Amino acid sequence: MRELMVNLGERSYPIYIGEGILNDIASLFDKHGISRKSPLLVVTDDHVAQHYLNGVMSSLQNGGYTAASAVVPSGESSKSLAMLESLTAKALEAGLDRKSAIVALGGGVVGDLAGFVAASYMRGIRFVQIPTTILAHDSSVGGKVAVNHPLAKNIIGAFHQPELVLYDLSTLQSLPARDVRSGLAEVVKHGLIWDAEFVTWCDNNAEKLLALDAEALGYALYKGCSVKAAVVSQDERENGLRAILNLGHTIGHALEAVAGYGEFQHGEAIAIGMIGSAKLGVRLGAPEDVYTVTRRVLGKCGLPVRLPEQYDTDAIMKAMMHDKKFGEGTVTFIVPTAIGKVEINKQIDVTMIRDIVNELKQEADWA
Amino acid sequence: MRELMVNLGERSYPIYIGEGILNDIASLFDKHGISRKSPLLVVTDDHVAQHYLNGVMSSLQNGGYTAASAVVPSGESSKSLAMLESLTAKALEAGLDRKSAIVALGGGVVGDLAGFVAASYMRGIRFVQIPTTILAHDSSVGGKVAVNHPLAKNIIGAFHQPELVLYDLSTLQSLPARDVRSGLAEVVKHGLIWDAEFVTWCDNNAEKLLALDAEALGYALYKGCSVKAAVVSQDERENGLRAILNLGHTIGHALEAVAGYGEFQHGEAIAIGMIGSAKLGVRLGAPEDVYTVTRRVLGKCGLPVRLPEQYDTDAIMKAMMHDKKFGEGTVTFIVPTAIGKVEINKQIDVTMIRDIVNELKQEADWA
Repeated sequence: MRELMVNLGERSYPIYIGEGILNDIASLFDKHGISRKSPLLVVTDDHVAQHYLNGVMSSLQNGGYTAASAVVPSGESSKSLAMLESLTAKALEAGLDRKSAIVALGGGVVGDLAGFVAASYMRGIRFVQIPTTILAHDSSVGGKVAVNHPLAKNIIGAFHQPELVLYDLSTLQSLPARDVRSGLAEVVKHGLIWDAEFVTWCDNNAEKLLALDAEALGYALYKGCSVKAAVVSQDERENGLRAILNLGHTIGHALEAVAGYGEFQHGEAIAIGMIGSAKLGVRLGAPEDVYTVTRRVLGKCGLPVRLPEQYDTDAIMKAMMHDKKFGEGTVTFIVPTAIGKVEINKQIDVTMIRDIVNELKQEADWA
Repeated sequence: MRELMVNLGERSYPIYIGEGILNDIASLFDKHGISRKSPLLVVTDDHVAQHYLNGVMSSLQNGGYTAASAVVPSGESSKSLAMLESLTAKALEAGLDRKSAIVALGGGVVGDLAGFVAASYMRGIRFVQIPTTILAHDSSVGGKVAVNHPLAKNIIGAFHQPELVLYDLSTLQSLPARDVRSGLAEVVKHGLIWDAEFVTWCDNNAEKLLALDAEALGYALYKGCSVKAAVVSQDERENGLRAILNLGHTIGHALEAVAGYGEFQHGEAIAIGMIGSAKLGVRLGAPEDVYTVTRRVLGKCGLPVRLPEQYDTDAIMKAMMHDKKFGEGTVTFIVPTAIGKVEINKQIDVTMIRDIVNELKQEADWA
């Protein structure tokens, strides 16, 4: 079992990564101050519930915890104020008090939703993340939680750090292949922004990762979480440095919005976005391998590296201009300067981004 | 003009109290880091809007700010998730970004609602309080913001401190007499928990306060805010000491719930609650004047000191047991030990509270 601390002063917390961790859930909860005297609420989605909910509930109950559960429909549409209201009712009915915790068992949607319930219930109670996807290695570190508004994604939320994160690698074995690939996009991103050596490791181990080799996966998630934790420790509330985590996301979010949510998986959209950022970096003076290596590693992970032609460039640009990362009219982009290094560039010309979007349609497909 | 700092480390902020402050709104905003480059959203209710919205909007615009406004129906029912959704839409339409601020112009309902919009919009943006009631001197200090759930009041919220509070005494001149009396209950409460000298001052100046004498009111609000600020500075997130601010609130909230919200004003309900707490204090050994002085000062402020007989004791006790201040099954009460002093007593017998509730029905009316 690997253990990693996210250092945030009095809000610091550990991440455990390993096989079969869920069998030890009660002792880990106890070790990290989750009270047995106050009831818990486990939130999950209908897909994850089938595989893991019963196991988690009986581990908790056998370990002396009182826990209720709530199952929401899987998918982005559950990140709504209506679901916040219904989960708050569940929490009230189950008698959750200020010393209770809410447990998010699932991927990013469940983590974001259950996390915002925890952040707002009685103005904030404890929160535990049990991610069951590779993608969630990203969202489970850093405390960003939110629901969507009909007019904008993630616009109603909070920074609310968990008490602990339990990453049981066994739960990843049931992931659909497309979710595996999509999750690897954020893993590779963490290398690209921070750790050239880890990018080389991904380049050499992509096949093992796609095959869900437990040792390789444990290492990759540990490294991905480590980079995220290092960045978040330096800038918890996204006043500066934390923006580098958005590598590939500005174009990626615009693609998701234009294609309609659900058309691209998040990791697929940001893979294309990262190719775009790499091209931008090279155009601004970075060595050519920023583009070739980025493209090769993402391609090896089975991710798209070309923007399908049917998506209208004007529509993509318009969606991008609504993105909340454009503060006070300036156009900010995360730009690679080398493999493992990026800069926050606030002076990127919009026409250059338009060129890049058009070029992304001319890329060759991978292998 | 009086100025007071709420000391909360990097979240410290000033409260300005005086006549005509709203004329200087733009320069005070500028002084405290509210950006002219990002649009503002002013939230108010339909009563307050009639008197003060145009003035505030033109002061802001003349001072170089871009501001949109949103008017909600007055009253507790506006503290809802539906209103959060609609105000978030307003904020998006007005183009609020991460450097924008939301301005709460009104009483406690507007402050709680607009404050939670600010706490959750883009995971938290700046927030300014412009209280227009006496009662709001309490809610505008300390950063508690929330909306209601159909099953519980204030259950969905956050701790979100404002950047500054502007208390223009001129806005209090249009307050209905009943709101003046109700607001004074929290003013007196701040004396009762912390400052015996201020209780004596209230005893001697109740008439001036009821007559809205600007000098007396300015002093009383300054003292009330000072006590609240001192308590909150020591315990921002209500882990201990802050609970003393709940003097009279356990019985008070139960009365509000049983009578139906709106039947009692908040200050009226907690006035009765504080008489109950004083009786409990004396029963547990406090000097007799804890009861006589508490009763006299609240009576002089025109507040009820007797519980009307029609309210069923069983129903009140049941409502009290659902109150969220009862953590892990223990019955905690804020109990006066002298005028200006209280203790947090976690071992109060429920039957003693029941006796007190019954005795409150036998009190004589004031004067």
